[in-house]
Amino acid sequence: MAETGLAAVMAAIRDFDRELQLLKHGTALLQWDQETCMPSAAAAERAEQLGLFETLVHDRIASGRLGELLEQTGAGPDAPSGSESLSEQDSALVRFLFREHSIARKLPRELVGRLARAASSGQTAWRAARAHDDFAAFKPHLEELVALAMQRADCLGYRDQRYDALLDQYEPYMTTAEVRRVFDELEQSLVPLVAEIGEAPQVNSAFLYGEYPEAQQAEFGRRVLSAIGWPADRGRLDCSTHPFTIGLGRDDVRITTRYDENFFNSAFFSILHEAGHGHYELGFGEEIRGSCLADGTSLGIHESQSRFWENIAGRSRAFWRYYYPQLQQVFPSPLADIDLESFYRGINQVKPSLIRVEADEVTYGLHVILRFRLELGLVENELTVKDLPEAWREESRRLLGVVPERDVEGVLQDVHWSMGGFGYFPTYALGNLYAAQFTETLEQELGPLAGFLERGEFEPILAWLRRAIHRHGAARTAEELVHSITGGPLAADAFMRYLRTKFGEIYSTA
Amino acid sequence: MAETGLAAVMAAIRDFDRELQLLKHGTALLQWDQETCMPSAAAAERAEQLGLFETLVHDRIASGRLGELLEQTGAGPDAPSGSESLSEQDSALVRFLFREHSIARKLPRELVGRLARAASSGQTAWRAARAHDDFAAFKPHLEELVALAMQRADCLGYRDQRYDALLDQYEPYMTTAEVRRVFDELEQSLVPLVAEIGEAPQVNSAFLYGEYPEAQQAEFGRRVLSAIGWPADRGRLDCSTHPFTIGLGRDDVRITTRYDENFFNSAFFSILHEAGHGHYELGFGEEIRGSCLADGTSLGIHESQSRFWENIAGRSRAFWRYYYPQLQQVFPSPLADIDLESFYRGINQVKPSLIRVEADEVTYGLHVILRFRLELGLVENELTVKDLPEAWREESRRLLGVVPERDVEGVLQDVHWSMGGFGYFPTYALGNLYAAQFTETLEQELGPLAGFLERGEFEPILAWLRRAIHRHGAARTAEELVHSITGGPLAADAFMRYLRTKFGEIYSTA
Repeated sequence: MAETGLAAVMAAIRDFDRELQLLKHGTALLQWDQETCMPSAAAAERAEQLGLFETLVHDRIASGRLGELLEQTGAGPDAPSGSESLSEQDSALVRFLFREHSIARKLPRELVGRLARAASSGQTAWRAARAHDDFAAFKPHLEELVALAMQRADCLGYRDQRYDALLDQYEPYMTTAEVRRVFDELEQSLVPLVAEIGEAPQVNSAFLYGEYPEAQQAEFGRRVLSAIGWPADRGRLDCSTHPFTIGLGRDDVRITTRYDENFFNSAFFSILHEAGHGHYELGFGEEIRGSCLADGTSLGIHESQSRFWENIAGRSRAFWRYYYPQLQQVFPSPLADIDLESFYRGINQVKPSLIRVEADEVTYGLHVILRFRLELGLVENELTVKDLPEAWREESRRLLGVVPERDVEGVLQDVHWSMGGFGYFPTYALGNLYAAQFTETLEQELGPLAGFLERGEFEPILAWLRRAIHRHGAARTAEELVHSITGGPLAADAFMRYLRTKFGEIYSTA
Repeated sequence: MAETGLAAVMAAIRDFDRELQLLKHGTALLQWDQETCMPSAAAAERAEQLGLFETLVHDRIASGRLGELLEQTGAGPDAPSGSESLSEQDSALVRFLFREHSIARKLPRELVGRLARAASSGQTAWRAARAHDDFAAFKPHLEELVALAMQRADCLGYRDQRYDALLDQYEPYMTTAEVRRVFDELEQSLVPLVAEIGEAPQVNSAFLYGEYPEAQQAEFGRRVLSAIGWPADRGRLDCSTHPFTIGLGRDDVRITTRYDENFFNSAFFSILHEAGHGHYELGFGEEIRGSCLADGTSLGIHESQSRFWENIAGRSRAFWRYYYPQLQQVFPSPLADIDLESFYRGINQVKPSLIRVEADEVTYGLHVILRFRLELGLVENELTVKDLPEAWREESRRLLGVVPERDVEGVLQDVHWSMGGFGYFPTYALGNLYAAQFTETLEQELGPLAGFLERGEFEPILAWLRRAIHRHGAARTAEELVHSITGGPLAADAFMRYLRTKFGEIYSTA
């Protein structure tokens, strides 16, 4: 194709993409509003609105017009970045849209509708089942959701195994074999570490459950948020039942938290976590802003950014060396008699528990491995939904040494499966691994992170993350990103070094 | 057409309309968010988003598919309600969509784009001109906006005069001749009334400018809002620079206000005003909910509902007989020494002034008449933009007896013209006339309004408004509505009776 012809095609693709992004952001606003502002009686109609908007987005992505334009570029869906005549930027754009387009084309509209309805009624059934600790009531829904996920995977296609197709929705280009490899490595390291910590003298965290009035939590949270570079003119912090981050445009990224007036950790670490996600969404490079590439390249990479701020920075001794005197002033009653070291150990208490979202940094990965093994079994036909609660108990005993007595503390605890989100869980643990790998490079290039944190100097850290990670958005795949930053592939060893150093010292096990 | 064929066509029209409403409400959420929540840096992209969504709505309304469906009903655009084979409901739906469709088809897409761009840059220019009291800088924009409004009117067509086509956008089926008739009547009655009041002993309103902390204003405002029947699960009250009401769905209507900590009236009467608009939007009948008929039938009728709650109820002695003791408790410092009668007179002070939005009930209509005369002159080519500031001063002297020294207090004070909103102003005054007419019928049917208000009994009032006005939405035209409620046409005499009784007593002129 002649150069000018190609330029015209790329211009048309960019226009098409631009409109698609505006439409997606309009849809995202409907979602944000639903969780933060919407009056309760509007819920049913909001579902209709979202259904329409999601259909409009889907129809555009699947449209023959987009397919034709992409074909005209001469690049294939799996073309490596930088094909002969396209710039690196344009290659990435074409690759991204080709991928989205071919996924949308492979899914029959009828299946998309059935998936959406099953996810909607699945969530309703899950909420009711949870309220009554009644797995049997949720079972038929889960069976349908598993069957649909399998159908979905079969429509999308895969090379080695069905789970690949599901995983690929959340962690593009990642394979089941790869996840299994790093999770096996992780399990073999985590289980003995948890055991060692269990035998060491324990730490006290009771003071975290004192009186923490919401207004003061909000004021302190906003102070830190601003210090770590959150731009008031490009984002918001609101309240919602479940904290989340959502991008509504180039300069509009919103995060939420929830306040528990009797527990410090809940709101504060959620704010840091969501701010990490938000920083990623706000940091896409000028050249991809407003395009489909202005997106997290995978959920694992997205999670690496939230976990970096929440845990690696926010749960470090250096961070609190700077902020703890301020925190004590804000909450004199619960904290006046607690020294920095006790506070630091308290927020880093390790204790095998039943609930994933309350887990510490060490045991968290085991919660994810448990879910990965079980959902893999389900979609590969090696485990039935009927046997799931018992399988959960067995895996929990084996991995964490604790066994849920009730299903609400076991198989009914997470929302993901009720929405058909099979393949999602691994990304949580991958995020921790990526974060530790990235941090090692950051420290090689900038020097020890602690040096910045203990002086409250966040700007150089954010600048490094922007440069190395954020600006690329989805123009680099997760694999390309990890290679470009660390020189190697995804691995568990950096994360294990991080855990052993930090918790070996806290629990004197090193 | 066979009955079953017609039923199928109507079903298709209802489906088409339903999707259109969902799309319109998505657009409305973008607008609401822009005024209440959006981070400032997102403004430019929000304009792009709104542009896309408004285009999607416009394209659907103008689509050949809708035109075909409407033709297939056999009804014409001007078919009276209840054509042979259609139900009253379906006739109204077809009439409404026919009207919207033919308007959209008459406007060339190129003109729609030019109007949108001129309105956008017009507002920006107006804001700058206002800040520097510089009409000359705004003049070229206003000239273009007038020219485009004339083009728009010429595309839409009209029977008698060009202004008809513009007025019809905001007050469907109303004519310039009709407005002129009632405004002439209004002017002849208002001017002598204002003069009489001016010669009477004046009332004191200084206490309204005391210390009114925002939190207490908000608490009191929400208390009254709830008492007049505002449903917390179907609506919201937020803050914005300019108070407004917006419908986002069947069960989602949002109002805003703004707080001035040194002036009581600002927030409180805005809340009542917007709640009146909101009640209308929340009161559409079950049979039209979610359709295009779930809309105010005209801006004048919409304004009648806001003015009813703000003025006829909210500025009445009976209302404050009930609420003033509570208000005194909330604001003891400015109000402890002010008795009910002084408060009532203070909030009803009449004083010719320069600024429309601060005008009292008596002089307000004269501000509207001034604007109507001038914009009529502009679009009928009897007045040029160059001569507008001087014409404003002359009319202001003639109608109100006050003359703005600076254009910010004259021709630059309102946003409407900068957005191309010619034909909008009359609806404000029509709202007051409709409200007074409706109230006379309400009192004939329910007994004196004061009796309910002084007991804080708002439910029977709201029920009457719902029954007589709200439930019909746009299924009845403003003219049909006024006839069905009052037995006669729009007229100024009820409003003048209301003013003469109320203010004659306050100023002892009666």
